[in-house]
Amino acid sequence: MNSFGERFRFTTFGESHGKAIGCIVDGVPAGLVIDEDFIQSELDRRKPGGKYATKRNEADKVEILSGVFEGKSTGTPIAMVIYNTNQKSKDYSNIKDLFRPGHADFTYFHKYGIRDYRGGGRSSARETAARVASGAIAKLLLNELGIVVESGVYGVDGIEAHSVDFDFAKKSEIYCLCPEVDEICKQRIDEARNEHDSVGGSVLVRIKNTPIGLGEPIYYKLDAVLADAMMSINGTKAVEIGEGVHSSNLKGSQNNDEITKNGFVSNHAGGILGGISNGDEILLKVYFKPTPSIFKPLRTIDINGDEVELKLEGRHDPCIAVRGSIVAEAMAANVIADMLLLNMGRTIQSVKQVYTK
Amino acid sequence: MNSFGERFRFTTFGESHGKAIGCIVDGVPAGLVIDEDFIQSELDRRKPGGKYATKRNEADKVEILSGVFEGKSTGTPIAMVIYNTNQKSKDYSNIKDLFRPGHADFTYFHKYGIRDYRGGGRSSARETAARVASGAIAKLLLNELGIVVESGVYGVDGIEAHSVDFDFAKKSEIYCLCPEVDEICKQRIDEARNEHDSVGGSVLVRIKNTPIGLGEPIYYKLDAVLADAMMSINGTKAVEIGEGVHSSNLKGSQNNDEITKNGFVSNHAGGILGGISNGDEILLKVYFKPTPSIFKPLRTIDINGDEVELKLEGRHDPCIAVRGSIVAEAMAANVIADMLLLNMGRTIQSVKQVYTK
Amino acid sequence: MNSFGERFRFTTFGESHGKAIGCIVDGVPAGLVIDEDFIQSELDRRKPGGKYATKRNEADKVEILSGVFEGKSTGTPIAMVIYNTNQKSKDYSNIKDLFRPGHADFTYFHKYGIRDYRGGGRSSARETAARVASGAIAKLLLNELGIVVESGVYGVDGIEAHSVDFDFAKKSEIYCLCPEVDEICKQRIDEARNEHDSVGGSVLVRIKNTPIGLGEPIYYKLDAVLADAMMSINGTKAVEIGEGVHSSNLKGSQNNDEITKNGFVSNHAGGILGGISNGDEILLKVYFKPTPSIFKPLRTIDINGDEVELKLEGRHDPCIAVRGSIVAEAMAANVIADMLLLNMGRTIQSVKQVYTK
Amino acid sequence: MNSFGERFRFTTFGESHGKAIGCIVDGVPAGLVIDEDFIQSELDRRKPGGKYATKRNEADKVEILSGVFEGKSTGTPIAMVIYNTNQKSKDYSNIKDLFRPGHADFTYFHKYGIRDYRGGGRSSARETAARVASGAIAKLLLNELGIVVESGVYGVDGIEAHSVDFDFAKKSEIYCLCPEVDEICKQRIDEARNEHDSVGGSVLVRIKNTPIGLGEPIYYKLDAVLADAMMSINGTKAVEIGEGVHSSNLKGSQNNDEITKNGFVSNHAGGILGGISNGDEILLKVYFKPTPSIFKPLRTIDINGDEVELKLEGRHDPCIAVRGSIVAEAMAANVIADMLLLNMGRTIQSVKQVYTK
Repeated sequence: MNSFGERFRFTTFGESHGKAIGCIVDGVPAGLVIDEDFIQSELDRRKPGGKYATKRNEADKVEILSGVFEGKSTGTPIAMVIYNTNQKSKDYSNIKDLFRPGHADFTYFHKYGIRDYRGGGRSSARETAARVASGAIAKLLLNELGIVVESGVYGVDGIEAHSVDFDFAKKSEIYCLCPEVDEICKQRIDEARNEHDSVGGSVLVRIKNTPIGLGEPIYYKLDAVLADAMMSINGTKAVEIGEGVHSSNLKGSQNNDEITKNGFVSNHAGGILGGISNGDEILLKVYFKPTPSIFKPLRTIDINGDEVELKLEGRHDPCIAVRGSIVAEAMAANVIADMLLLNMGRTIQSVKQVYTK
Repeated sequence: MNSFGERFRFTTFGESHGKAIGCIVDGVPAGLVIDEDFIQSELDRRKPGGKYATKRNEADKVEILSGVFEGKSTGTPIAMVIYNTNQKSKDYSNIKDLFRPGHADFTYFHKYGIRDYRGGGRSSARETAARVASGAIAKLLLNELGIVVESGVYGVDGIEAHSVDFDFAKKSEIYCLCPEVDEICKQRIDEARNEHDSVGGSVLVRIKNTPIGLGEPIYYKLDAVLADAMMSINGTKAVEIGEGVHSSNLKGSQNNDEITKNGFVSNHAGGILGGISNGDEILLKVYFKPTPSIFKPLRTIDINGDEVELKLEGRHDPCIAVRGSIVAEAMAANVIADMLLLNMGRTIQSVKQVYTK
Repeated sequence: MNSFGERFRFTTFGESHGKAIGCIVDGVPAGLVIDEDFIQSELDRRKPGGKYATKRNEADKVEILSGVFEGKSTGTPIAMVIYNTNQKSKDYSNIKDLFRPGHADFTYFHKYGIRDYRGGGRSSARETAARVASGAIAKLLLNELGIVVESGVYGVDGIEAHSVDFDFAKKSEIYCLCPEVDEICKQRIDEARNEHDSVGGSVLVRIKNTPIGLGEPIYYKLDAVLADAMMSINGTKAVEIGEGVHSSNLKGSQNNDEITKNGFVSNHAGGILGGISNGDEILLKVYFKPTPSIFKPLRTIDINGDEVELKLEGRHDPCIAVRGSIVAEAMAANVIADMLLLNMGRTIQSVKQVYTK
Repeated sequence: MNSFGERFRFTTFGESHGKAIGCIVDGVPAGLVIDEDFIQSELDRRKPGGKYATKRNEADKVEILSGVFEGKSTGTPIAMVIYNTNQKSKDYSNIKDLFRPGHADFTYFHKYGIRDYRGGGRSSARETAARVASGAIAKLLLNELGIVVESGVYGVDGIEAHSVDFDFAKKSEIYCLCPEVDEICKQRIDEARNEHDSVGGSVLVRIKNTPIGLGEPIYYKLDAVLADAMMSINGTKAVEIGEGVHSSNLKGSQNNDEITKNGFVSNHAGGILGGISNGDEILLKVYFKPTPSIFKPLRTIDINGDEVELKLEGRHDPCIAVRGSIVAEAMAANVIADMLLLNMGRTIQSVKQVYTK
């Protein structure tokens, strides 16, 4: 269960402090120019380091092992590996037998009877680098059709964007969507870190120029798969499509998007109707909990059931929404690539189109 | 793409005004007592009719066609069919060539080039009866292990529950979780209908007594699959696990659930850590948009792109969250049944347990 | 695990003596004209009755419940049901607690702890009617692209065809491919029945006009999936592609198919290279064991482990290869339909073709 | 489509002359002791080199990148990589634009419009090393339950074993099952090589001590999945279960396996009834075509459609059945591991067994 997608499908492996992490991306159409620099640049956006992320020192250098020949995809699986270079730097004896609150230590131990306690093992957000690598290839595919996936931080610690500017987000140190709140959000993150605490945040993802028709009813709807994709990201606790939670407070007459010759008058739907893209901008919001790793003392138990006080040390993102933004964007790209391939056989006309010379 | 689940897997078929709807449930362990009355009673909870639902007159009588022998499951697929008895009562010529705003008419037509316009065809919430039938079998399985799935309406038109009482919800005409707001919620629904409008609402689902360990990381996490399941329900626009959206406004020190000998001190996580059940109550909220079918005039276009004014008539739920509550509950049961089966091979010990006499 | 296929995917249900059997066919492109008479005619070819088949009296009348609107597929799942009309005619008390040699009674009972003993329950070849129904829809799709799937009986009781004539097979009472051996094969079947015994047989399937490129390496190769499909048919014990077993006795210089401007010089490969169709005729052979149901006494045990002598009575096909031919043909059609849809996203050019207006 | 299995599932990557090949094995139960030396020893059995195989010089050194902690599986995906060390030794300009008869060059080029021509790229049997790595882990799992998978060469160039001795096969240079024909088979291989030709061969796989009940009807039957697995191996043209092709020449009274208190009297079925293991030895035969790479001149065409004479040089297995034997054995182990996990939820009793303390 470490694969995602049906036709554009990636499978990831790796633990936080194992030898390597990586993925195999299956279903990439042949003939796609694979720009390795672009893939690396996407990984660099998610990379640890910087003022508002963990201080873990990882180059996150991605290496392609297969599936690319003379710069192009060949239709065979593209394997990518990222060796962990900074994985031996720490002594884990203090948390080896403890369950860190808010982490998966407790559940992994009880499910599997064994766990790689070093940095959370498989449950570490380090795994998300592999998603970003796959997402980069997805983006290369989407780019051929003019589809654009973007993201940014919408809220931090309760402060929300007044307006959204995805270009600004690309430059912001915290990928903040709003120039007006960029500074205050950074302050909040700083403060939380200084107080040995952490903050939550939210992320907005926008997908532009999708053709009408993406999404496979009833059980592979576009919104359902996006929700699945987003909720699978470490720390996500809520997903909204379009108007989201707020739509439940509206009247039908307020929430319906009327249609004219020029298209939809509004976009409460977030670009999806009946689980299928309607051609409008797809908008989704992802809510991240505050980083569970904080440096304040916490009550917990050890694997013997004895109560202990946990005093964490080390390096952690004070706000996982920041790098989570890049991961959410990558997952959205992965979903759209998959939906594009799935949608190809939608009509007898589209089938004939491909097979008739 | 009309199947849901990996090991406990159901596949549905049918349109709102076709001959029948139904499902095949695959993966049901053999030897389970199949209580047909219980399945019917679950369908009756979702059934149209009543003061706060559509007036469509459907008995929703379910018939089991296979997979059950002498009252027990045999390990073979259980097919269930519900014949549509009230499907010919209406003239659809007025909406045949129009796209109803907020509905899937527009996207189905553009995706498939053809659509069954009668009552929304496949995109109708009528399909959810099949999910409830499957969910009923899932519940029979969960019941063997003492697992309980419950639901209720948490909010209507912005009014939210003050407290939650799942037993009260079972008796409420609108499945309302809170006796204090039951009346006002019903009023709001009535008012909306009288104004030819509709209201949104939210639903809370609770799952009790799950074993620790349900959920398959990284891409079949319990929360991710629940989000997928909920977002696939007609009209859902947001899903929250545990603290949900609110967690993004909290500090790590506020949101972490500390652990003592007696278990988790709080349950911000909603019973899931790292995508795996932690043994605590699983809590999720589902937000439904207001019913798109309203009787106020709406601007739209027809299949030729010409602008027209739509005047809907007929019978519709004024608040889809009400019956959506039962569907969300059924989907949660389906997910948990699937996760139970998937989790069986988690350790070499559990494998040996099953194969060693 | 009652589904077959990835994109053209059918799921079957039903027992030999339950209420009904049937299937849901998912992934049928929209806009395909669904000729119900053709579907019925395919079922009629497989139908029980006639001199060389079981005497069970079943009309095998298929009814479409969904997915078709105004004579065309809509892209939604097509459910088909065949009610069992002749299922109550027999007393099964004599075999209820016995394991018939050569049948799945033993394994179903031990696997599931319960079995529907009436006519073999789910393990009955009656289930294959659902495959034929799905295969008929697959053929309608293939027909749009000029692809033709045919089959016939190649051997009976060790007698093999001297030459193959698929048109003759269509008219032969036993679907025999060779006019010269048609009579002797029929005699052998008659003789076996008169001796209360049964005979084995083999079937040849030919697929013409497939485009080059069908089959998904490495683990959904065309030959591998055909082998899977054929081996899943009741009574199959061997599958050959092209030269098959015989190729293992050849030299490379004998077995290689050289290529000229006019195409392949020979077709030892059976139209498949590296798991992908090469445009030549696809040829496969399927070997069926003799019907296990014979009327000679057989030693067996009952569910308590006590030894008993089994004296079967009733009605059975004396040679399952005969009707097996139609099932093999249907399964081949199902596989090719699936491969056609899967192959659509093979190149970035084919993706662009479908999405660029 | 580069994954195999449902619950014990591996995904492979890599080309013959790319950087590396490898796999991710998903679904391995936690707590299994992972003996790396054993995995390497299995790869060594399949490794190129030796008198009867290609002279390609590859250490085939496997490295585990994830999923193992302190010597045990953790329940997370196990990634394994084998770097290609001998991939740059050759000039491929002579075959770059040609289609080698009997190879996948033609089909890959036409399917994908691009191909990695170096050593067959992805279609090379080099990929099978990854299957053997996964199969080794499967064997470690099977070993915990006492299940044994063995293989050997049954026939070469028309010479067949007089008797089978799996222990002898382990020591034979060509994995020959029969001491009496070992020498003559080796001679035949030598002769073919000296004549710049190649020979076909067949392989027998035996699986002992399987529990009754493995195999998921109707579309994941044990025999069907074994056929799929075997037919996916490079060069396989036929698969038989038990009596195989021969069963089609038998009478029911000859082919049925009667049952006594002591079990089945015979094993024509090859240990599988109705697609489910019956507890007897599972026996299957796999038929390999002669290696298509021969050094005699062959007529072919180039990518422009012009006719050319191909004169291959280099290093190739003169009989792919030899190393194919090890691959078939590995694939069988992979299938059985998968079936073991799938079968765990077969009854409500087995479910309760795992969840009740």
